[in-house]
Amino acid sequence: MKAVKFQNQKVIMVDAPMPDISEHEALIKILMAGICATDVELYKGYQDFQGIPGHEFVGIVEKAPQAPEIVGKRVVVDINIGCGQCLRCRNGDARHCPLRRVVGIRGQDGGFAEYCAVPVDNLRVLPEGLETIDAVFAEPLAAALEIAQQVHIRNDTKLAVMGDGKMGLLCAFALNHYSTRVTIIGRHAEKLELAAAQGISTCNTSDMPPEMLEQRLKGAFDVVVEASGNPDAINQAVKLTAPEGTIVVKTTSHQPSKINLAELVVNELTILGSRCGDIGFAVKCLGNRWVHVASLVDSVYSFADFPKAFEHAMAPGSKKILLAFE
Amino acid sequence: MKAVKFQNQKVIMVDAPMPDISEHEALIKILMAGICATDVELYKGYQDFQGIPGHEFVGIVEKAPQAPEIVGKRVVVDINIGCGQCLRCRNGDARHCPLRRVVGIRGQDGGFAEYCAVPVDNLRVLPEGLETIDAVFAEPLAAALEIAQQVHIRNDTKLAVMGDGKMGLLCAFALNHYSTRVTIIGRHAEKLELAAAQGISTCNTSDMPPEMLEQRLKGAFDVVVEASGNPDAINQAVKLTAPEGTIVVKTTSHQPSKINLAELVVNELTILGSRCGDIGFAVKCLGNRWVHVASLVDSVYSFADFPKAFEHAMAPGSKKILLAFE
Repeated sequence: MKAVKFQNQKVIMVDAPMPDISEHEALIKILMAGICATDVELYKGYQDFQGIPGHEFVGIVEKAPQAPEIVGKRVVVDINIGCGQCLRCRNGDARHCPLRRVVGIRGQDGGFAEYCAVPVDNLRVLPEGLETIDAVFAEPLAAALEIAQQVHIRNDTKLAVMGDGKMGLLCAFALNHYSTRVTIIGRHAEKLELAAAQGISTCNTSDMPPEMLEQRLKGAFDVVVEASGNPDAINQAVKLTAPEGTIVVKTTSHQPSKINLAELVVNELTILGSRCGDIGFAVKCLGNRWVHVASLVDSVYSFADFPKAFEHAMAPGSKKILLAFE
Repeated sequence: MKAVKFQNQKVIMVDAPMPDISEHEALIKILMAGICATDVELYKGYQDFQGIPGHEFVGIVEKAPQAPEIVGKRVVVDINIGCGQCLRCRNGDARHCPLRRVVGIRGQDGGFAEYCAVPVDNLRVLPEGLETIDAVFAEPLAAALEIAQQVHIRNDTKLAVMGDGKMGLLCAFALNHYSTRVTIIGRHAEKLELAAAQGISTCNTSDMPPEMLEQRLKGAFDVVVEASGNPDAINQAVKLTAPEGTIVVKTTSHQPSKINLAELVVNELTILGSRCGDIGFAVKCLGNRWVHVASLVDSVYSFADFPKAFEHAMAPGSKKILLAFE
């Protein structure tokens, strides 16, 4: 089968063997996949991952020895595969299993290939009315929705999202389902318009010095989501957060951030790291049209054109790049 | 009256006028005061405070036009004086009032003087059985107890306190009231013994390279309190905290800390700033002998010897330095 590998900061298409499936696994034929910022990090050498990348995808079940009833169904995949033995796994949450494999990221081949093998337990069957092109957002949407699992977002919670990139917009779209007071702060008028179209307030800082933003919106938000990708933006988030408020960090920069902890202490702020979430719940939100993601699609490439698609995904300002399989 | 001022990093004793009291204030004759790390920061220029410092003290009420029933009683003082008008104040919490004055720290003279004037509402009357030398710890103890108001500490919460200085020990003593699994991590055998004497586990790192501590205790704690005063210790706290755990920051260093936020995101950790707490609750804990602070006293100086006492308080390794008034 055709598959993608990253080698020495190059994208190559390889002929890989069809995956063997063990008794508790299913063989998935990929229908559509999305390229994520984490893929760009893997390409640059993050996690030293040698397998097939791809962790946002929709497929169709071709074989599932232990679950014949799902053969032929469209599915998405919970990417965390736990050891099954540790306390975390026994409590039903493989996301923090210390021995976990992560599909397309760590120790397990992913979906930038014609086929992929994953445990049946990690599959979530899609409802019929949900389009594949929407369902491919389930994994990143789960990460955005995770914020509301960690922090109690009320309908009147004053909430800002910093950054109008793919993750920032998705966080704003997701949290707009919880609060009527969501503001997205960014520098790109055309991106901010996508949020405005969903009734989200926008703040364009492209012509605004940082001090002006901090002065205007000092302590204005109960919750600030930092999704700008800039390791220094956390300090602006600190300024915009009300005393006893919470800053949620979605950016995974590998450069350290310089933070003045004294300000954190005086205002008793919380900084909370937030990673991936429950993909089944994301499917529910998409299936019920509670969150709308269609406007985030930039371009759809054929899988054979993966190198071109990946180049597009790395270009600044691109929205979500998708891959369609035969 | 005799009072202390800090001027250009010098301690001077001045003859200050007796404080005028307004209708809603009380005149307090100081009995005993404690010197705190924040006083050392003020001395170095923090907050550019020009008034009389001193925010940990016990006094006796000499005048209180609106509350004659408390004249002659021993009291401690809630140091946050709110504007009384903002939403924070109306909710009964002046600690985060944006216009607050803070006794001995910001906009209000403190207790390094023979007398002090504070609003009657900020006084907490001491129970008869509580010794003045214990009650003088009420303000810093309230700050230590604040941790358990912000984070749910259960009896089985695995909790570490980093730092065996005054604040570290006080946090360990306070949290030992909530959890049976408190460990204090420090470098001074004689300080750690004070914790061991209260049944707290100790970890002496004076001969241990940082990597060894991180390897031994990686992810071992649900809650880690950073009270070492070292702006870089936060990164060690990150290593010692279990996934989805909480780091409470008590250190107010004015140097920025370099933090790798990616680790925070992957493990979904919380960093929580923690400042002062409810002094009335601290008095209750001291009065009921739930928390024992006597072993933290280093030396008691006469107020006339304040300069000598302050020098002692600034010496590394000193425990709590107290001042006794005539």
